[in-house]
Amino acid sequence: MSVTAAKGFKASGIAAGIKESGGADLALVVNEGPSLAAAGVFTANRVKAAPVLWSEQVLRGGQVSAVVLNSGGANACTGPLGFQDTHATAEKVADTLGLSAGEVAVCSTGLIGVRLPMDKLIPGVGTAAAELSRHGGEKAAIAIRTTDTVHKTAVVSGDGWTIGGMAKGAGMLAPGLATMLVVLTTDADLGPGALDTALRAATRTTFDRVDSDGCMSTNDTVLLLASGASGVSPSTEDFTAALEAVCADLSRQLIGDAEGASKDIKVEVVGAASEQDAVEVGRSIARNNLLKCAIHGEDPNWGRVLSAIGTTSAAFDPDRLNVAINGVWVCKNGSVGEDREKVDMRFREVVVTADLAEGPHCAVIWTNDLTADYVHENSAYSS
Amino acid sequence: MSVTAAKGFKASGIAAGIKESGGADLALVVNEGPSLAAAGVFTANRVKAAPVLWSEQVLRGGQVSAVVLNSGGANACTGPLGFQDTHATAEKVADTLGLSAGEVAVCSTGLIGVRLPMDKLIPGVGTAAAELSRHGGEKAAIAIRTTDTVHKTAVVSGDGWTIGGMAKGAGMLAPGLATMLVVLTTDADLGPGALDTALRAATRTTFDRVDSDGCMSTNDTVLLLASGASGVSPSTEDFTAALEAVCADLSRQLIGDAEGASKDIKVEVVGAASEQDAVEVGRSIARNNLLKCAIHGEDPNWGRVLSAIGTTSAAFDPDRLNVAINGVWVCKNGSVGEDREKVDMRFREVVVTADLAEGPHCAVIWTNDLTADYVHENSAYSS
Repeated sequence: MSVTAAKGFKASGIAAGIKESGGADLALVVNEGPSLAAAGVFTANRVKAAPVLWSEQVLRGGQVSAVVLNSGGANACTGPLGFQDTHATAEKVADTLGLSAGEVAVCSTGLIGVRLPMDKLIPGVGTAAAELSRHGGEKAAIAIRTTDTVHKTAVVSGDGWTIGGMAKGAGMLAPGLATMLVVLTTDADLGPGALDTALRAATRTTFDRVDSDGCMSTNDTVLLLASGASGVSPSTEDFTAALEAVCADLSRQLIGDAEGASKDIKVEVVGAASEQDAVEVGRSIARNNLLKCAIHGEDPNWGRVLSAIGTTSAAFDPDRLNVAINGVWVCKNGSVGEDREKVDMRFREVVVTADLAEGPHCAVIWTNDLTADYVHENSAYSS
Repeated sequence: MSVTAAKGFKASGIAAGIKESGGADLALVVNEGPSLAAAGVFTANRVKAAPVLWSEQVLRGGQVSAVVLNSGGANACTGPLGFQDTHATAEKVADTLGLSAGEVAVCSTGLIGVRLPMDKLIPGVGTAAAELSRHGGEKAAIAIRTTDTVHKTAVVSGDGWTIGGMAKGAGMLAPGLATMLVVLTTDADLGPGALDTALRAATRTTFDRVDSDGCMSTNDTVLLLASGASGVSPSTEDFTAALEAVCADLSRQLIGDAEGASKDIKVEVVGAASEQDAVEVGRSIARNNLLKCAIHGEDPNWGRVLSAIGTTSAAFDPDRLNVAINGVWVCKNGSVGEDREKVDMRFREVVVTADLAEGPHCAVIWTNDLTADYVHENSAYSS
């Protein structure tokens, strides 16, 4: 049900001809209200795609009536003309649906540095508008895929209200958001301020801690639209917890579909002096190419974990570090621990636990292994 | 001639049986004086191998009479017993050659987290001492190899004095030194202070700017020994320039032999507001797995360069960035530039130039592409 699980939303997904493959490449999500409250978080990359620059402006108003999303082109590094293309897309949606362009968010994903084929995209908006449906959530989720092998959706229900969402992303997954587009919708009745607080809290521990390949995208966008159609205003706590559950579910799906990966790696950092230390160490481990190769080879090479920890500024004593791989403490007190032969790494999920032995704080970062397939997918053609 | 090019040095390289392959794995370099002045720089990794902790202490005295180096085991993350092994190795060298153990530096390289086979290493020291020769430089360079496919040496001559050196390193090449051991020798007559200044200046722009795979080692060591046997004391300027030339030569050899690489990538950052900005941007580009894959595929994917620049804190305006690949300015003013079809990437060396258009500063970082062979070398067995 994805973005149409909550009351007050329609969606569609169609093939506009933007992708040469002829696959679905244009999605529309419309909030029919009564409320148009919205919040958004965007890539921390300082090189931002045109649709990010546009949607950041839209979100400043705290109201979003529609989101138009295309795959098949990122519209990033396309200069002022690229920004005009985004603007024209929003205007076309607004004209077609009788909305204000200033309340239409735009998302794009695909190759950087190429203009969008506007001669296909603009007519596509008309087709997508004609297809809008209370049951269009799945089609929208399918249309935003790039190298995704599956579409990703999640739904959580509260007491009389619902949050649903869709995500796309398969490569360039890194902090400050993965290369991903996410649209979350809810029929809870909450204002833009409450939505913003909840969204920032939920993404901080989910999408922001997915780091497939250390590369941060120019297009990452997570939008949250609230129709208020349930007439229920949940507490911030309840709503944030449900939103975090949806975001965690979608994040896990992103990691599970990362380009060329054969392992999903949960890097748990425990015993840290601060959460910031735990995150810094987790990211350093998650980005260590040598460790990612070792895990691909099912080799519990804990020396590479210590080597990665050693590059951080976190509080730790090298002689007190402990590392477990899939629950076997192969490194104790900075040196050889339990027999590494005991580690079973046959399954797709691998858990690397690093204990800094300094305090009570912890964090989890999700990453993938580094494989020949990843190299192939990212070297054989432009993406 | 490597470490025996300069007057006053003997060296040897032998097979002590540390490596299961039976290959050469133990090297000895001895300074016969008259001066024993020395300087050293070590890994910035906070998890340091036992030989690094030992040699840092030795170098504090500013005098080194001998260096013993082994491949086949890093003696890192081996706890107090590992440190005792290093100490015992230095003692054995001192006993055998009639030196003080406090003036014997130790270097190790190989797998982390495994104790050295001291029953083979200690007798090996005796054999290596017996083989010491004025012509042993090449054998020493061969004995320190791990996954290196070639041994690396360089020599530069000044006015009556010489600097020679040897290096090993093929993977885990990253800043704060690559995974490498380097011994440089000179017959120039300079004190420890002058050597230290020259060594730090030379490594800052050479070994510190080699970043093959973003992974920083626990064992990196660069030692500079001066015998004074030429009787000549060159100016700091002349000596530093010559030392930098030797270090640059060895650095380039390291990149050229990086594990599984098919391209050597020179990342030039120009137009930066400060050298620090240039280095930060260069490292970010050099570590971008997606770009490294694209270059492997001979795809001039400049969007990935901009995406990498965007993750830094350097001064730049996204709309003024320019990027050239092998001299073709494929990105101008943050957008599409010259025809990417003009870029010829058939050769092993690829030059990526990023112009931040902010100031006069620049820096060069060397890296490699990311290949299926890199994944294979680092996943198929522990290393």
